[in-house]
Amino acid sequence: MIIGLIGFGKVSQNIVRLMDSDDITFITSKEGRSDKTIKNIDDSNIEVLDTFKQVAIKSDILISATSPKNAVKVAQEYGKYSKGIYLDLNNVSPDTTLEISCHVKNLVDGAIIGKIDSKNPILYISGPKSDELLFINEFFKTEKISANIGDASTLKLLRSTYTKSLSALLIETSQIAMANGLYDEFFDILTLTEGADFREKSLSRIENTLNNSKRKAEELEEIIEYFSDDELVMVKAALEKLSQ
Amino acid sequence: MIIGLIGFGKVSQNIVRLMDSDDITFITSKEGRSDKTIKNIDDSNIEVLDTFKQVAIKSDILISATSPKNAVKVAQEYGKYSKGIYLDLNNVSPDTTLEISCHVKNLVDGAIIGKIDSKNPILYISGPKSDELLFINEFFKTEKISANIGDASTLKLLRSTYTKSLSALLIETSQIAMANGLYDEFFDILTLTEGADFREKSLSRIENTLNNSKRKAEELEEIIEYFSDDELVMVKAALEKLSQ
Repeated sequence: MIIGLIGFGKVSQNIVRLMDSDDITFITSKEGRSDKTIKNIDDSNIEVLDTFKQVAIKSDILISATSPKNAVKVAQEYGKYSKGIYLDLNNVSPDTTLEISCHVKNLVDGAIIGKIDSKNPILYISGPKSDELLFINEFFKTEKISANIGDASTLKLLRSTYTKSLSALLIETSQIAMANGLYDEFFDILTLTEGADFREKSLSRIENTLNNSKRKAEELEEIIEYFSDDELVMVKAALEKLSQ
Repeated sequence: MIIGLIGFGKVSQNIVRLMDSDDITFITSKEGRSDKTIKNIDDSNIEVLDTFKQVAIKSDILISATSPKNAVKVAQEYGKYSKGIYLDLNNVSPDTTLEISCHVKNLVDGAIIGKIDSKNPILYISGPKSDELLFINEFFKTEKISANIGDASTLKLLRSTYTKSLSALLIETSQIAMANGLYDEFFDILTLTEGADFREKSLSRIENTLNNSKRKAEELEEIIEYFSDDELVMVKAALEKLSQ
């Protein structure tokens, strides 16, 4: 089986690492790539073709793993050459996923949950052809959500809605606790019901959110825009909190 | 040691159960009590005096465990007769705790976290005399927060601020998930990072909050009023959510 990779960042590198098998040949191209990416490709020892068009034509599974902003462009340019499965892993919104589906025949909508460079990332997939990717379970956990294109990206967005709002809540309540001289005690008391790792996990979320508050706020804006039909009270408050 | 109980509801009954020892005599009174409470007192087999004034005078530790709205009145009426420690367990606000301290000499501010009728409730205490109650650790976990009257009730309020807002967030995000046909998947995906009991715990919180939304909203109003100096964005949104 030939798996073609468009984009050779963290996701593609780790897919090559995780799906180490004599039955799989990975291919990509250095066409138009940066020096850094070319070095990563050289380090990985996978097969290199002259153009991404050739990669698309030759692949049984074509994986697009570049960046959210390039996802549609890649689908427009190379989707038409892909005869097998086209797996989009660009962490795009459900709307963008639907746009991609206009340019690609056998689209599978994919979302990676957990860290791709860990031992146990989980790939959530949706779309009519997603059954054909369940063999990836041999290498790492892969779950089909449904046959609907867009469900994998919607689920990732829902997850993100919860975790980002939770981070905003943690920021707010820990600040009140600090103002009242009960910061450590606040985490201690919640650890009793929220689990032994509550403090560590919460502090990591707070730090990560404060260090990336602009980006997180933008992501919350996209979430609010996407789910606009719903009564979003907590999520809008989270955006306000992160914009402070 | 003599421990006097003013109020004989769930808290007092469980204290008698948990602190079963030959060295401790529990006393209370049936003065002005309801039939139901009198039955509970009879069932418990503890010593009964004619009046609460006698109970207050005779106790080494006097525990006030009636209800938030009676806490100040009990302190006014019987605090002056208490020569030992006066432990308030009425789940009152930090402001009310300070008011109680005006009527009571050796006040210890207590807050029970977890279910009192379980095997492992935790008693948080604060106040200058709280060291004298650490012996309760022989019976169930008792932690001193500080020597400041009000810290135990403030900590309980902080905990409640977090858990009530979290419930509002769970209600909102699970409703969006349901509207998008991904309700089960939403809980599944979060279980990966939030712990194996995420679904069960969250559903219990959602149900409990929706079934008691009026009371929860009132409690959030009190929280917002108490912490009014702070920038409460998420907590105010939680109140709005529960008022919907």
